[in-house]
Amino acid sequence: MPKLIITCLVAALALTPHAGLAQAADAAPKPAEIGFIFNSFLFLVSGFLVFFMAAGFAMLEAGLVRGKNVAMQLTKNVALFSIASLFFYALGYHLMYPGDAWTIPNVLGAFAVTALEPVGLEGAAPDLTYASVGSDFFFQLMFCAATASIVSGALAERIKLWPFLIFVIALTAVIYPVQASWKWGGGFLDAMGFQDFAGSTVVHSVGGWAALTGAIILGPRLGRYKDGKVQAFPGSNLALATLGTFILWMGWFGFNGGSQLYMNSAGNVADISRIFANTNIAASAGAVAALLMTQALYKKPDLTMILNGALAGLVAITAEPLAPTLVQATLIGAIGGAIVVFAVPFLDRMQIDDVVGAIPVHLFAGIWGTIAVVFTNDAASIGTQVSAIAIVGLFVSATSAAVWLLLKKTFGLRVSAETEIDGLDMAELGMEAYPEFSKI
Amino acid sequence: MPKLIITCLVAALALTPHAGLAQAADAAPKPAEIGFIFNSFLFLVSGFLVFFMAAGFAMLEAGLVRGKNVAMQLTKNVALFSIASLFFYALGYHLMYPGDAWTIPNVLGAFAVTALEPVGLEGAAPDLTYASVGSDFFFQLMFCAATASIVSGALAERIKLWPFLIFVIALTAVIYPVQASWKWGGGFLDAMGFQDFAGSTVVHSVGGWAALTGAIILGPRLGRYKDGKVQAFPGSNLALATLGTFILWMGWFGFNGGSQLYMNSAGNVADISRIFANTNIAASAGAVAALLMTQALYKKPDLTMILNGALAGLVAITAEPLAPTLVQATLIGAIGGAIVVFAVPFLDRMQIDDVVGAIPVHLFAGIWGTIAVVFTNDAASIGTQVSAIAIVGLFVSATSAAVWLLLKKTFGLRVSAETEIDGLDMAELGMEAYPEFSKI
Amino acid sequence: MPKLIITCLVAALALTPHAGLAQAADAAPKPAEIGFIFNSFLFLVSGFLVFFMAAGFAMLEAGLVRGKNVAMQLTKNVALFSIASLFFYALGYHLMYPGDAWTIPNVLGAFAVTALEPVGLEGAAPDLTYASVGSDFFFQLMFCAATASIVSGALAERIKLWPFLIFVIALTAVIYPVQASWKWGGGFLDAMGFQDFAGSTVVHSVGGWAALTGAIILGPRLGRYKDGKVQAFPGSNLALATLGTFILWMGWFGFNGGSQLYMNSAGNVADISRIFANTNIAASAGAVAALLMTQALYKKPDLTMILNGALAGLVAITAEPLAPTLVQATLIGAIGGAIVVFAVPFLDRMQIDDVVGAIPVHLFAGIWGTIAVVFTNDAASIGTQVSAIAIVGLFVSATSAAVWLLLKKTFGLRVSAETEIDGLDMAELGMEAYPEFSKI
Repeated sequence: MPKLIITCLVAALALTPHAGLAQAADAAPKPAEIGFIFNSFLFLVSGFLVFFMAAGFAMLEAGLVRGKNVAMQLTKNVALFSIASLFFYALGYHLMYPGDAWTIPNVLGAFAVTALEPVGLEGAAPDLTYASVGSDFFFQLMFCAATASIVSGALAERIKLWPFLIFVIALTAVIYPVQASWKWGGGFLDAMGFQDFAGSTVVHSVGGWAALTGAIILGPRLGRYKDGKVQAFPGSNLALATLGTFILWMGWFGFNGGSQLYMNSAGNVADISRIFANTNIAASAGAVAALLMTQALYKKPDLTMILNGALAGLVAITAEPLAPTLVQATLIGAIGGAIVVFAVPFLDRMQIDDVVGAIPVHLFAGIWGTIAVVFTNDAASIGTQVSAIAIVGLFVSATSAAVWLLLKKTFGLRVSAETEIDGLDMAELGMEAYPEFSKI
Repeated sequence: MPKLIITCLVAALALTPHAGLAQAADAAPKPAEIGFIFNSFLFLVSGFLVFFMAAGFAMLEAGLVRGKNVAMQLTKNVALFSIASLFFYALGYHLMYPGDAWTIPNVLGAFAVTALEPVGLEGAAPDLTYASVGSDFFFQLMFCAATASIVSGALAERIKLWPFLIFVIALTAVIYPVQASWKWGGGFLDAMGFQDFAGSTVVHSVGGWAALTGAIILGPRLGRYKDGKVQAFPGSNLALATLGTFILWMGWFGFNGGSQLYMNSAGNVADISRIFANTNIAASAGAVAALLMTQALYKKPDLTMILNGALAGLVAITAEPLAPTLVQATLIGAIGGAIVVFAVPFLDRMQIDDVVGAIPVHLFAGIWGTIAVVFTNDAASIGTQVSAIAIVGLFVSATSAAVWLLLKKTFGLRVSAETEIDGLDMAELGMEAYPEFSKI
Repeated sequence: MPKLIITCLVAALALTPHAGLAQAADAAPKPAEIGFIFNSFLFLVSGFLVFFMAAGFAMLEAGLVRGKNVAMQLTKNVALFSIASLFFYALGYHLMYPGDAWTIPNVLGAFAVTALEPVGLEGAAPDLTYASVGSDFFFQLMFCAATASIVSGALAERIKLWPFLIFVIALTAVIYPVQASWKWGGGFLDAMGFQDFAGSTVVHSVGGWAALTGAIILGPRLGRYKDGKVQAFPGSNLALATLGTFILWMGWFGFNGGSQLYMNSAGNVADISRIFANTNIAASAGAVAALLMTQALYKKPDLTMILNGALAGLVAITAEPLAPTLVQATLIGAIGGAIVVFAVPFLDRMQIDDVVGAIPVHLFAGIWGTIAVVFTNDAASIGTQVSAIAIVGLFVSATSAAVWLLLKKTFGLRVSAETEIDGLDMAELGMEAYPEFSKI
């Protein structure tokens, strides 16, 4: 064998390698291209942060379900992100940006698969005042995927895998993109003056409405509401839930910061800085609000409420992370956190079973954040904000309910009682997340 | 219900959406703004990396405490970060940057809440030679929060939640910012020529001194030192501890790299690159030193020592990550790692109980790193470095001790013996981190 | 004690601090430096993402081994990264970039330790058309370390710590850099026209070949193949394995995106955007392919296959992430995922025991990806691609086998049967990863 090595080394040494690198490169960017580079790189960095939110949701949900359903929850999270990626480019991205108008040819054109700019922009006439199509697509895709992640947590521990994934296709290919086009594709909500900077309504409430209709149609977990009392089903791994929350928190800097869309001027980068600072303060205020309130109400702080309080603060500031002062951002976030503390038991009283608290966090705090815009952004009118919340809510609830009911009629939505009691992991996957740790 | 969908779709199709995006944008940044954008974006990227260190500390500590205290440790970490965020903007940031001098009006002005630059910088005259105020605030805030994270690990498993959080307020609103102003606010330590690039002393030793005084005043965990012997209390989850270490390691690229403060020239970005390379090598050398030494001393490598060795290497290089060559950085980091291997049993002999090794890592390696600056940076004098270490140490120890003692007198610092034995999770929170996994 | 505080405060107040910051800074970068800043920052951001892959590998492997070997697997991962850092700068980086040619003086010069550019580039004449040496070194180092991470997973649960780490030295100081120089150091594979954009062959197959030879020489785990049947050894923590996969997925944006090497023009940043989008789609397609195939073949989705499917999609797109359309990237990734589903049982039939599936993912999907280049990149010829795969494979297999066999003869490679049955954690480290959780 040493002979082989020597032969290879001789071969390597015999040939004179080229000194340079493969890629040719002009030294300095043209002045007109600098803004384009900044904007595109903002999308790429923000985009990988928002991508990481998929891991954050996965860990949060894996930590908050019971041990017997962890592997299934992980499977759902990896699968839903992957499916969102495929269907958003196959259809959703075009539906979201239908071009000049929702005319018949444009709508039909939506069924063309997304195409990026050519390699090296050769032959292309890029819009140098904005960013590369690929970076915009990458960033927008992550928002669409986040919407689906919201749903998976609420419906955990009882929904079948495949019907859930079919719903994800409907949500990411059609429902999310269509309503997102109304605001971000330059549609009628945008024309009405609806303000939703990074998507308290367009992203978070959409996931929330889809989760809410799903939770109602699916029904609560077995034994959750017994004799009118809520049975506690504690999460199996709060360390993972906390990790997931921190990951989501970090990802939100990309979520809100990237939504500035431009980093090509001092004013824009200063605005992104404001957004980072406000986003962080709102999350902190949401966490502290939940900490203080659970201490006051229950005499003991509740870690899962604190985590959801931070997330609710983040959702609440998402509709307008730029205009508020730090003090205003603190209040917006704190109220978001407070909403969660009240909304979680409220949903339970309604016997709507939301495993991870996704509906309070993403829907209720999302509505609050969308309304709060009127306090800090003069361009916002309360009427428009409420109308937009209602229109999006009606559309998403109606379409989601239609899909959920169709799935219920055809494949069935819910695992058998036996499977639910045994846990979805062994029954549906034949594997466990923690096979060696004995259970109490 | 399908009718609803159709109605909504018709509404969507009926209105002609606007083609463009909401934000107006000039194509190319003005040449004078390009450096400002680079500097600000450096702070934002570095800042989210340092933010993620909060998750790193949380995972490291959750992994190194016993299972019965994990939920409490997680709660403390989320709460301390959130509180640091609120109090650093409410007071700390102004104390840290008191303006021209610590005159009476300036000190009083410190009680004004931090204000960011206006949206779009409208009406502002930003300092285009530096970075946006928001990005600087965001970055500095993360350093302040890191200081508090250091304390929580050392005092784990026995300190009450609320007194700890009150200490965090004192630390992040006053103690940290006041001493940080002496160096980074242009204060007297800076005038003396004290060199501490990214805070071996200003950040890490401060957390370390606060932890040390706290650990002494609080006393060791029950049963930790029995008949003069140290009882091993193994960490409950070394996978999380390892994850936490990797997260901290990654965050340190932002911690040290962002402390270059400028990325507006070839020289500055080359310096940031040196810093990244040196930071990584120092961590690696610290880990390898601990690996070799625990093998030599105990015949078995010790994973928690290796993790703390990497962290000690990082702390040690933090005082001067730019000037050293890679070989020098290797030595600085390796000695940091070696210090931990000796300091952990030394503290135990002193019956000072530091649950996660925070004092060896952040205080001892921080002192070493601050002194090591004289070997690589001609501007540093050993007298000044030692004086600054002592001044900061005295100030932080004295103020921390005052707060700890005050808290001890008033609320009490320590949970009851019963609570400590049962675990803080059930007693103080009423929940467990891993409720389903049966214990040995 | 209060007296001390007052003294310190008085000292602080007495001295007038300097207003400014330590570093002097020119406001605006020179036009010729802007491209250099963009390129270097691309390497730094991409580099920390690839760094984080070390955490991803650690979590993936810790999740897929049995509980009794988790602490050892974590130790190996921290140690291998640290060792790779040290040896790549001590030797590897020079071997990889031997200067103009592999002449005798240049090869000897390789034994000089890596030197970065001077602080502030003073006295240096940097190549402003490229990036800082430090940023390039930092980025390249992470690739070298990734190669070693691939090996550790395949050989888990039975290889001794120290022989493994000695192999890591050989791999990262010599084997990886020498073959990498053939392509990326401008060597003979590059001259032949071999196309491997970010290293399906140069990185992933190298780790894969080293793992394959190691797995053959080391033999399977005890009891793995009993009476010709494969015994399932389920991973102990699928939540960590999923987290590791998401971390690797995120890191891959840096891995492939940074390999564009330049971000100094609109064309380059648009290309990086294409790469991000293609990388994401390939991973998603690999995951969905594995999901559908395991459902079809086994009637149950297999989470570990789905995770490995995503990773195989990533490996497959790595050889050419730029040229493919999104549809092509989908197909390349999906075939990568399908390969894993077939290759895992195939290796088992060969009684080659690869604990985490590293060989299917990194070697088989790496080969597929390298060949697939011919479908999308006109510059690639099938003959050259296959030749390069074979040359690299022969070289790495031969040199790895030599090192493995030498280690087997001298120190021995494998722990005792007793140690293997008891688990490496208690026997070799004297600690457990999860000491409190009782085992089934």
